[in-house]
Amino acid sequence: MQFTSEQRLDDGVLEREFTLGEIPGILWTPASAPAPVPLILLGHPPLGLHKMYPRLVARARHSAAEGFATATIELPGSGDRPRWPAAEQARADLHRAMEAGEPVSDEIVDALILPLVEKSVPEWQAALDALLSLPEIGGPVGYSGGVISIGVRLAVVEPRIVAAGFFAGSFVPRAMFEEARQVTIPLHVLLQWDDEGNDRQAALDLFDAFSSKEKSLHANMGGHTGVPQFAGDAAAQFFTRHLK
Amino acid sequence: MQFTSEQRLDDGVLEREFTLGEIPGILWTPASAPAPVPLILLGHPPLGLHKMYPRLVARARHSAAEGFATATIELPGSGDRPRWPAAEQARADLHRAMEAGEPVSDEIVDALILPLVEKSVPEWQAALDALLSLPEIGGPVGYSGGVISIGVRLAVVEPRIVAAGFFAGSFVPRAMFEEARQVTIPLHVLLQWDDEGNDRQAALDLFDAFSSKEKSLHANMGGHTGVPQFAGDAAAQFFTRHLK
Repeated sequence: MQFTSEQRLDDGVLEREFTLGEIPGILWTPASAPAPVPLILLGHPPLGLHKMYPRLVARARHSAAEGFATATIELPGSGDRPRWPAAEQARADLHRAMEAGEPVSDEIVDALILPLVEKSVPEWQAALDALLSLPEIGGPVGYSGGVISIGVRLAVVEPRIVAAGFFAGSFVPRAMFEEARQVTIPLHVLLQWDDEGNDRQAALDLFDAFSSKEKSLHANMGGHTGVPQFAGDAAAQFFTRHLK
Repeated sequence: MQFTSEQRLDDGVLEREFTLGEIPGILWTPASAPAPVPLILLGHPPLGLHKMYPRLVARARHSAAEGFATATIELPGSGDRPRWPAAEQARADLHRAMEAGEPVSDEIVDALILPLVEKSVPEWQAALDALLSLPEIGGPVGYSGGVISIGVRLAVVEPRIVAAGFFAGSFVPRAMFEEARQVTIPLHVLLQWDDEGNDRQAALDLFDAFSSKEKSLHANMGGHTGVPQFAGDAAAQFFTRHLK
């Protein structure tokens, strides 16, 4: 892990860009932290870190104010990382189906999501190894955010993640419902009730499948990007309960 | 409205029992309130105020700490109020169906809930008239709690109620789904995901039916009475956002 840039944001949060091999990432740490702090991995959709930066940094600042470090990495095939023909094809198929008003087939969803899960989860785990070796990062670790299937897989395979906040706003391959039954850590699931790009019933079924003894579903009005401020506050309280 | 008893609880909250005609009720006001305070009406299942007291007073104390007055009244046919043969019959039919493992018919649900809504809503409105005439009670007014059909009707017919927190844990007559479409005030709906006495799909359908621009569904694990502490905190934050 190599830091490539460093800046203090106006609220004192330290923002450092890094590379982990070929993978770019960003780490945010609170303005002042007398002891190693807990870490939240910030998940996001595969739109590239640059495009996602405004929303990511807002979440990072919010978390830093609660005493958390946050970090994120570029997903495979996004941003400046090499394009990946099968994923490009799946995305093109998805757009074609949606523009034609056709239902999105299981094949498209599988092709879009499953390889992304397979490739990205070991990358998040490698990032976790590197981040936890920094003296300023302690634990415990939470995962928060988008591409819920990546979060589900991480919650199953990565024991260092002790709590997760998911955003039910992406297609979910059928195989992930079985995997969801293996999730036992505390969960906080956000659902935008009228999310135009999301299958509400699938999100409810996925929530039902999790085996976690503590799981909460927070459904709010509005579309995919319309998560209200108070929903973010509730998610922050969830992490404060479980990572402090 | 006549006050019949008065005591200070150990946290300074003033608890006053009252009668409104034949109807007993309880009013709680914060320890110190320099100006008239907002009011939350505490709904509850028809089990009698005496039986419900421990849970009601806990909610009242929590609300008082946030600067709210709270009040509740005995439901018709509950507690010391006259029994009501049709309701007793509906309740007996319900228990018989449940013990036999049979589905609870629409007829039973209608007989159980609709007359309760018809009778109790004007009583809550009369209580509101009396409570708002007290100098220490200002407004705005929220409704919080059980028998969701009573809350729905109040949200439709009572313009003084500006926000409502519902508990989706009671049977809902089909007629109420239509009525739910007329609700436009901000809503915070609690659902216990594994509530043994509740139809989860009906609760989700009811949530979907509300026309409110701001509505949130908070689903948590556990049975009917297992609402976690943090869910109560989130409901309190909802009222603080809307009544202050």
